[in-house]
Amino acid sequence: MSELRRDLVKNNWVSVAEHRALKPNDFPIAKKALESSVMGAFCPFCEGNEQFTPPEIAAYREDSEPNTKGWLVRAIPNKFSAFELEGELEETCLGVFSRYNGLGKHEVIIEAPEHDIDFHQLSVERMEIILKIMRDRYNDLACDKRIKYIQIYKNRGIFAGASLEHSHSQIVALPLVPAENQGMIDYYKEKHHCLLCDILAQEMSDERLVAESEAFILLCPYAPRFPYETWIIPKNHKEHFGGISAAEIQDLAKIIKKFSNVMIESLADPSYNLVINTAPVNVDYQPGYHWYIELTPRLLVNAAVEIASGIYINPVAPELAAAMLREKMLTAK
Amino acid sequence: MSELRRDLVKNNWVSVAEHRALKPNDFPIAKKALESSVMGAFCPFCEGNEQFTPPEIAAYREDSEPNTKGWLVRAIPNKFSAFELEGELEETCLGVFSRYNGLGKHEVIIEAPEHDIDFHQLSVERMEIILKIMRDRYNDLACDKRIKYIQIYKNRGIFAGASLEHSHSQIVALPLVPAENQGMIDYYKEKHHCLLCDILAQEMSDERLVAESEAFILLCPYAPRFPYETWIIPKNHKEHFGGISAAEIQDLAKIIKKFSNVMIESLADPSYNLVINTAPVNVDYQPGYHWYIELTPRLLVNAAVEIASGIYINPVAPELAAAMLREKMLTAK
Repeated sequence: MSELRRDLVKNNWVSVAEHRALKPNDFPIAKKALESSVMGAFCPFCEGNEQFTPPEIAAYREDSEPNTKGWLVRAIPNKFSAFELEGELEETCLGVFSRYNGLGKHEVIIEAPEHDIDFHQLSVERMEIILKIMRDRYNDLACDKRIKYIQIYKNRGIFAGASLEHSHSQIVALPLVPAENQGMIDYYKEKHHCLLCDILAQEMSDERLVAESEAFILLCPYAPRFPYETWIIPKNHKEHFGGISAAEIQDLAKIIKKFSNVMIESLADPSYNLVINTAPVNVDYQPGYHWYIELTPRLLVNAAVEIASGIYINPVAPELAAAMLREKMLTAK
Repeated sequence: MSELRRDLVKNNWVSVAEHRALKPNDFPIAKKALESSVMGAFCPFCEGNEQFTPPEIAAYREDSEPNTKGWLVRAIPNKFSAFELEGELEETCLGVFSRYNGLGKHEVIIEAPEHDIDFHQLSVERMEIILKIMRDRYNDLACDKRIKYIQIYKNRGIFAGASLEHSHSQIVALPLVPAENQGMIDYYKEKHHCLLCDILAQEMSDERLVAESEAFILLCPYAPRFPYETWIIPKNHKEHFGGISAAEIQDLAKIIKKFSNVMIESLADPSYNLVINTAPVNVDYQPGYHWYIELTPRLLVNAAVEIASGIYINPVAPELAAAMLREKMLTAK
């Protein structure tokens, strides 16, 4: 179990392991975990190794029993969860410091039974199933009134923070709302418009547009933190990812499949993160949220400027990034 | 030249290259720049190659002419500066977006004429000289009224964002104040006390204390973003790094020398950042700042949770990190 500690100087929240200390050589960077897993180390996510993960929460499988072979996607509790969904949220003060207990959930979605298939290599149909289980888990977790924010994300490659190579995503369900998307709320308060809807209206010119599907716009944001950062924004204003329709999932799977292949090919097989940003749950209603997906290739490491000042230095203008990605999307199959 | 663009969704500032796009294979990660420089590639920071850097701004040298051999430390403009100190700060609005011109300065401090010496291997006397040139540059840059914040920092190793191996630090002088240390201001407004002074008073017990010198306390902060993160805090309340005395520089050089060796040895030669956090300059006075140094070993990569929600997951309790580092500091020479 962990604690959520408040950093008063930087106004960050930090989930700190309570009585645990990874030794310096246990970290993925030091262990080069990716290399060793490529080289045939044991992988608990592979089909046939179901007994080495915690029992599954949900799965897409045909006729087989839970926790046995014969599945396409599995959702399991994260064995190294930073959170536990027990009791109520409690604040403890220690002089100037304060902390919460680590109330919450941390799940893993194993995206394929095969070890050697990468996310972008999956078929559109299999991507659809992954998106469906993400939506199902989102809506299920949102039923617990103690959960205030659900973040679904993917770390691919060592420079994006992945510690296992087998294709997977993660879900954290938190007892508090991160401040990161507050900009959308502030904008709505001032203008009585949705920020992302206004951005979409302005961005329909070519300059930062990457691609368009029936239901989604892909664009490089005006102030991207990372080179070639791309957002996938639903055209229709919807606050929660959990409200995504079956038709939208089909459409989204197609465009993610196409774009992830373009990204892998044209950016020299980068590490990347995929994050679903969505409205908080179980809190007083605040208008202004519009769910969207961030795709952040990690061609640069966050250095001292980024981590200490929160100012990002990005050597690639998004207009040029979008021009390159747009061209590749046009010619891709 | 670059622009400072505001990310309205996340409330970040991003320095974006105006008409430039690094190609995917130009990034340090792809190029494995560190490896190639080890393997004998040309290094513009080495003694004898002074003509391959922009002319120096300051240096500690004996009798030799500027931009020739015979120096211990050189400060030069960053050849790939994100900023230029020309004209005034101007905001441009483009529909919902806004940006500033890239007013500011970006300098490099070359910490040694030798390529193969690492920062922690320098003598205490040479570290003193580095701290002196940092102080001098800080106070010089602060004279320009257009500069509002000066950040001095060091990226060491590829996982800390370093793109060159030759030991160096950097300085960015910005036309705006990052929000990151706002917590100190908010705390002062509420309590009429300095947050760091209150933390020092509370932390004099062993639990998170790492070491103490005449003028400084080393501790693992209560809510550390990174495993084994350590702060060096001046015991006396001072707002600006620029006000550091000669005696304090001597004392600081000694404790940095000792601690950086402990960090390198006990954390398996990690990448790390060193950042000097200090008060803004040329702005209306706000009480509450207290300068300090952050040392962040980078044993983990910032993954999707950190970059998207701003919540850090740290698998090492600072109490255990401090116990280990404290023990090593006691037994180190």
